[in-house]
Amino acid sequence: MKKYFINVNEEETPKYIIIERHIKKLIDSNKIEDGEKLPSIRVLAQLLGVNNITVVNAYKKLENEGHAVQKMGSGTYAKRKDINRNFKREYSETLKKISGNLQEYIDFTGETPSSSFFPVKLFKDVLNNVLDRDGADALIYQEALGYEGLRKSISNVFWKNRIRSNDILIVSGAQQGIDIVSKALINTNDSVIVEKPTYSGALSVFKWRRADIFEVPMGEDGIDIVKLEKILKKNTIKCFYTMSYFQNPTAVSYSEEKKIQILKLADIYDFYIIEDDYLSELIYDESMVYKSFKSLDKNDRVIYIKSFSKIFLPGIRIGYLIPPANFKESIQNSKINTDISTSSLMQRTLDLYIRKGFWKEYIANIRVLYKNRYIYMEQCLRKHLGDKVDFISPGGGLHFYMKIKDSLKINSITLFRLAKEKKVLLTPGILFYKSPSDGEKYFKLGFSQTDEEGIEKGIKIINNLMEV
Amino acid sequence: MKKYFINVNEEETPKYIIIERHIKKLIDSNKIEDGEKLPSIRVLAQLLGVNNITVVNAYKKLENEGHAVQKMGSGTYAKRKDINRNFKREYSETLKKISGNLQEYIDFTGETPSSSFFPVKLFKDVLNNVLDRDGADALIYQEALGYEGLRKSISNVFWKNRIRSNDILIVSGAQQGIDIVSKALINTNDSVIVEKPTYSGALSVFKWRRADIFEVPMGEDGIDIVKLEKILKKNTIKCFYTMSYFQNPTAVSYSEEKKIQILKLADIYDFYIIEDDYLSELIYDESMVYKSFKSLDKNDRVIYIKSFSKIFLPGIRIGYLIPPANFKESIQNSKINTDISTSSLMQRTLDLYIRKGFWKEYIANIRVLYKNRYIYMEQCLRKHLGDKVDFISPGGGLHFYMKIKDSLKINSITLFRLAKEKKVLLTPGILFYKSPSDGEKYFKLGFSQTDEEGIEKGIKIINNLMEV
Repeated sequence: MKKYFINVNEEETPKYIIIERHIKKLIDSNKIEDGEKLPSIRVLAQLLGVNNITVVNAYKKLENEGHAVQKMGSGTYAKRKDINRNFKREYSETLKKISGNLQEYIDFTGETPSSSFFPVKLFKDVLNNVLDRDGADALIYQEALGYEGLRKSISNVFWKNRIRSNDILIVSGAQQGIDIVSKALINTNDSVIVEKPTYSGALSVFKWRRADIFEVPMGEDGIDIVKLEKILKKNTIKCFYTMSYFQNPTAVSYSEEKKIQILKLADIYDFYIIEDDYLSELIYDESMVYKSFKSLDKNDRVIYIKSFSKIFLPGIRIGYLIPPANFKESIQNSKINTDISTSSLMQRTLDLYIRKGFWKEYIANIRVLYKNRYIYMEQCLRKHLGDKVDFISPGGGLHFYMKIKDSLKINSITLFRLAKEKKVLLTPGILFYKSPSDGEKYFKLGFSQTDEEGIEKGIKIINNLMEV
Repeated sequence: MKKYFINVNEEETPKYIIIERHIKKLIDSNKIEDGEKLPSIRVLAQLLGVNNITVVNAYKKLENEGHAVQKMGSGTYAKRKDINRNFKREYSETLKKISGNLQEYIDFTGETPSSSFFPVKLFKDVLNNVLDRDGADALIYQEALGYEGLRKSISNVFWKNRIRSNDILIVSGAQQGIDIVSKALINTNDSVIVEKPTYSGALSVFKWRRADIFEVPMGEDGIDIVKLEKILKKNTIKCFYTMSYFQNPTAVSYSEEKKIQILKLADIYDFYIIEDDYLSELIYDESMVYKSFKSLDKNDRVIYIKSFSKIFLPGIRIGYLIPPANFKESIQNSKINTDISTSSLMQRTLDLYIRKGFWKEYIANIRVLYKNRYIYMEQCLRKHLGDKVDFISPGGGLHFYMKIKDSLKINSITLFRLAKEKKVLLTPGILFYKSPSDGEKYFKLGFSQTDEEGIEKGIKIINNLMEV
């Protein structure tokens, strides 16, 4: 108890704040351990010579700021913030530190196309065309839904006019799309279903909205429908977040049958499907057909999100969103209150780029390039790592997802650290699960930033590290 | 009771969803009125021949989706969504509809500098310089904090290196700044203090975070300190959102004394100050000195937000943020999870524009232009409207805020509608208050989009309308 003592008689600071700060310090310095029960209100009030209500307020503030949790009928317990974020931080700081001399590394963490394939000169010409054509408007004029020309191009080129340009909302990339949809759709304690594993950026957004998150395991053609329905029967679900093609991280694509089943369930159980159309342009397996949830959606159940940053240009920060009719207005307001609108010049440039047919050309080019890398990497994985990991061949996209065989003791954090020493970068699975430990035996290898030579060399290094 | 009856025996849809949908329809079609008490759980369960728990679930879903509110110990009441948003929608749709032929109108709603003063040609040259210099990097390379060059320029030009470039985070405008700070700082049921009245975009963000919002009235040199302290004594406050110069909408600037008082209170009561540095570049009154809260902040209590979109180019969507040390990481994560990063090309272009001295030149130019308009408008207001409204002379910025004298019966919504018919656009005060009716006797007149001739003509028209 002694450590709890503090003199609360300062002149200007309220007593409950003095107490709260003192306990916060004890927690941060580990003098109170994570999960340790704090003294009862009565006991602490007596020790410090204050009213009970003063301690109540101090505990309430600790709880509000995430330094404590109250358990009904049992008391208040210390909580160290960020205890689970440690590896996430290590991972992102490693990548940050290395980013200056990335050329020394074999980088399997990349998620977007390599800049070396991007036609800068052409893009610059288009950009200047726009500035000559539109003058100051290109930099000033803002439309709530986004630049009308771009919305028309999207309607025309990507949807054969089946989606009207007025039903499209331009956003600053898929991450923003998820964020503004969540703001419009999800309230505190609403329930959300995600794939297990799933994209950590989406998990963060749902956690911020204080949603209850249910995970449904991914199989080889999408999530487990039986488990999905079990959850739906017992809970009111607001929405289901999915990446329909080459899911991040599993690289799985949904079968048409499964998409239809899920759409049917959405209608029965009254939930929405947030479809993050991730990298569907990069289908290499000719037997695969592109059919989004949105294209199969008959009852306005799908909120479709598409990013141009992922496939085209990370720095362009443009994507779009197709909301169901009854959320259109709230999602649009959500966009306005998030950042007013997306850079107008970039929208106009992308529009002209698409209109001139350069977009199709670019996609066709990188599809060939990455298909070759994909085939090569698949061969290398089978040849060098086949006895140590299980993985599926996704038939497209920019990565593979490895499960370390049960017979091996190494986990993916250790592998990440060892590989880093050997100048190879990979992404451990733990970043993609609500409970990080669920991902200990998985890792992701992306091939967008690494050419054939690097791929073979990198995989051989990983193989050596796993042999130990 | 009859209207509540529905057959719940469908094959596939759960009963509670059938009930919920039925009641929602009744509310939307006004067959159940806003605020009407719904039947008790027992009574409705009996009527429909279902278990009590089925009705409980239906009511819970209604409540979750905002169609009902539960009042402890009293039952559940219908709630029509959006009933308060009606005027907000009318206002924004009016502006949207008119945006095509704005030249026919005298527009006092503008909040940003007119595009006619913007040096497009020069900006285009700078942009091409960047593309020639950086190539694909300008479009692809992303830094978590934002482009280092721009951060250094900001540190150097705007802060004389007193703020380090690594303590600056680039964001996509002030609105995004407010949004990501709120995500990092504010949890459900945390308390926030705002100025009364305040910027509606900030109010929306705080409402989205489910914060409890306290309003403190604005006086002639900032908020009422006595009322502020009263709230602080009784409540745990997370942050105070303020626009320190030419506040939107009151046009009031804080005195240095008041800033120091508030900073002192922030330290005593452990809250943060979110300073939205709105239009401080446009000081016309030579006796006014520029001293932000941030520049006076000794205890790391201020989160400083600055937009380049407001003063420079709306379409550029760039701003920056200076977080206190202990929120730096969480605010940075919040940015990543909101939209990853801000358009790289635009950051580089702005950076070079500042480095070449064009920024200072531009600001110096528009300051002269707007000072003239400001002086002219102030004269017109005194001459033509002085007997009908009260207002302060802000000494800078781009707008005036009018209080309709108590002797006049007209309110600002009526005035807005009448003026629109006469091709004059103004902003009613009700958009800036938590309870819209508090703003009925106020309206805002901005002069950024209207020249001297329009100003005089518009004010005369408003005068005529108010005479009736």
